[in-house]
Amino acid sequence: MTEKKVDNVFLNSSEDAVVILDQTQLPGKEEYLTLSTVEEMYEAILHLKVRGAPAIGICAGYCMYCLAKQIKTKDFDGFYRELSGYRDHLNSSRPTAVNLSWALKRMDKVAVDNKERGVDEIVRLMGEECRKIQEEDIAMCREISRLGLTLIKDGDGILTHCNAGPLATSRYGTALGPLLLGKEQGMDFKVFADETRPLLQGARLTSYELHKAGIDVTLICDNMASIVMKNGWVQACFVGCDRIAANGDTANKIGTSGVAILAKHYGIPFYVLGPTSTVDMSCPDGDHIEIELRDPEEIKSKFYEKPMAPEGVKCYNPAFDVTDHDLITAIVTEKGICRAPYGESLKKLFDPIS
Amino acid sequence: MTEKKVDNVFLNSSEDAVVILDQTQLPGKEEYLTLSTVEEMYEAILHLKVRGAPAIGICAGYCMYCLAKQIKTKDFDGFYRELSGYRDHLNSSRPTAVNLSWALKRMDKVAVDNKERGVDEIVRLMGEECRKIQEEDIAMCREISRLGLTLIKDGDGILTHCNAGPLATSRYGTALGPLLLGKEQGMDFKVFADETRPLLQGARLTSYELHKAGIDVTLICDNMASIVMKNGWVQACFVGCDRIAANGDTANKIGTSGVAILAKHYGIPFYVLGPTSTVDMSCPDGDHIEIELRDPEEIKSKFYEKPMAPEGVKCYNPAFDVTDHDLITAIVTEKGICRAPYGESLKKLFDPIS
Repeated sequence: MTEKKVDNVFLNSSEDAVVILDQTQLPGKEEYLTLSTVEEMYEAILHLKVRGAPAIGICAGYCMYCLAKQIKTKDFDGFYRELSGYRDHLNSSRPTAVNLSWALKRMDKVAVDNKERGVDEIVRLMGEECRKIQEEDIAMCREISRLGLTLIKDGDGILTHCNAGPLATSRYGTALGPLLLGKEQGMDFKVFADETRPLLQGARLTSYELHKAGIDVTLICDNMASIVMKNGWVQACFVGCDRIAANGDTANKIGTSGVAILAKHYGIPFYVLGPTSTVDMSCPDGDHIEIELRDPEEIKSKFYEKPMAPEGVKCYNPAFDVTDHDLITAIVTEKGICRAPYGESLKKLFDPIS
Repeated sequence: MTEKKVDNVFLNSSEDAVVILDQTQLPGKEEYLTLSTVEEMYEAILHLKVRGAPAIGICAGYCMYCLAKQIKTKDFDGFYRELSGYRDHLNSSRPTAVNLSWALKRMDKVAVDNKERGVDEIVRLMGEECRKIQEEDIAMCREISRLGLTLIKDGDGILTHCNAGPLATSRYGTALGPLLLGKEQGMDFKVFADETRPLLQGARLTSYELHKAGIDVTLICDNMASIVMKNGWVQACFVGCDRIAANGDTANKIGTSGVAILAKHYGIPFYVLGPTSTVDMSCPDGDHIEIELRDPEEIKSKFYEKPMAPEGVKCYNPAFDVTDHDLITAIVTEKGICRAPYGESLKKLFDPIS
């Protein structure tokens, strides 16, 4: 195979299909899937074969480019009618994924804005645009990684929760970015990865990514974070984020707030890393972030040979929790490192002059 | 079947075999095993079909009685030689289980002390002794339950970690005792049971026991304790203990110290419940408690259909952690409720006059 496997989402060498690393097969199997038809693309996004908001956006961009190339007509109206159908179909695969519709709209805009330049030129420009989406993500992750790396030093122990690495983004990732960038520069970290129940993203994805990159990673159960910190093995916590409110309260994978409280107890800095696109200035604080409740079977039976709790026992299965801003040492974005008071420092990201 | 199933370990109706609830089959199957031969008994203890230190002690007492009845000779030396062989064999099943050797020694002492009274009388007295071991455990658990119940009120939300219920002891248990006793008295609690990775005692055993007793129990992943507390759903934490040092530092199932730190952060009282036999006055503090490290495969592959972390990834798998005494609101024993300073209050348990 001639495809470049630096990334988990990329175009094949003939640029008529999208290649993705199937994340549902990890860590047991590293299987790359080639997506040629809109149905294959739809199915891959729907079933989380590609996951992580930025990675979904990148994938959607490439999909639209490949699908545009497949359209036979050179008449704009016919071309755009077909393209819109593909766009709407892909968009329905995961309707709540913001990056999916954002990337699809961006690709669509290339067609609309260049209507007069002919279909061949539109397709060429779409090829540029989808590469740009990935390049921008790489640049964003790289900048977060660079800034995050200034917060730690060679040899440090780092605890992380869930997965905010390259699999969820493009190269580097966010929370894992400083570790991967530091490794490239010859630094060594000792990383402790919470397995992150119930979906085990820490075990299945984070430990896989770090181990593959040659980084010293130790997998622990979520309830072992306290003893690992008490042992003096952790100098900083790095986590990603799903949504940051205007006051700095941060929603992230369930369990993140517990890690932050332990870190405070043991006097360890706790850092949130994410792009400015996750800062929601219209959301005043964590109380305004709705928490998604998921299927109890994820706790009782998923991944197991047989159910691990009796039938009829209730479960509470929130997908996220909110970490209070006063537990967060700093928020690292591609535009800079924000510290308390977050009301001011986050605002400056969007309006640097005021 | 005519056996009384109030307990998880008991004699069959003809009193020639020990019946146990096979804990390795829970929660999927409630299977009672009848142990008649020393090999069956050895195997049941070895493979954790009966588990929990007090339950193992009770089982060992009954086993020795049944085995003594099987011995054909009425000559003391011959009888005792055979009995000693059984004792040593059972004792080798789990050499580090203190309650096992304690119960075996206690049964052995009945034979030695009554050497002159004849084998039939010795066997009769051994029957009394093994029942006494269980009765003492029931009385101890009942007293812990009664005292623990004074710390909470009807309608409270209680969070518990691991399993310190009837399965691990006899009726009531320790940490779950106040909840079961309160239920008998018509009180209702809302219990949150941490699933307790990696061996899932909370999911498999605690949620099973409480659900069966008609108590409102909600199973959560360990990393959800923080959000449950933040939601205002928890008025007290109840946990068991494996070893309490003279200064109150307490070793218990891995993750307990994290629960205690969260409870302190959210202003929730954190109670340790256990018999005075777990207080080790010869151990000055938690730094002197050695932590057992277990097989990484418990984290990576146990219970799963396929391994959940890549081959070659390291795991850190401590079985216990130590909760600092200053995180513990009170320690509830059958002899009374101890509060800080624990150096003094624990000492008084053993020497009430000083």
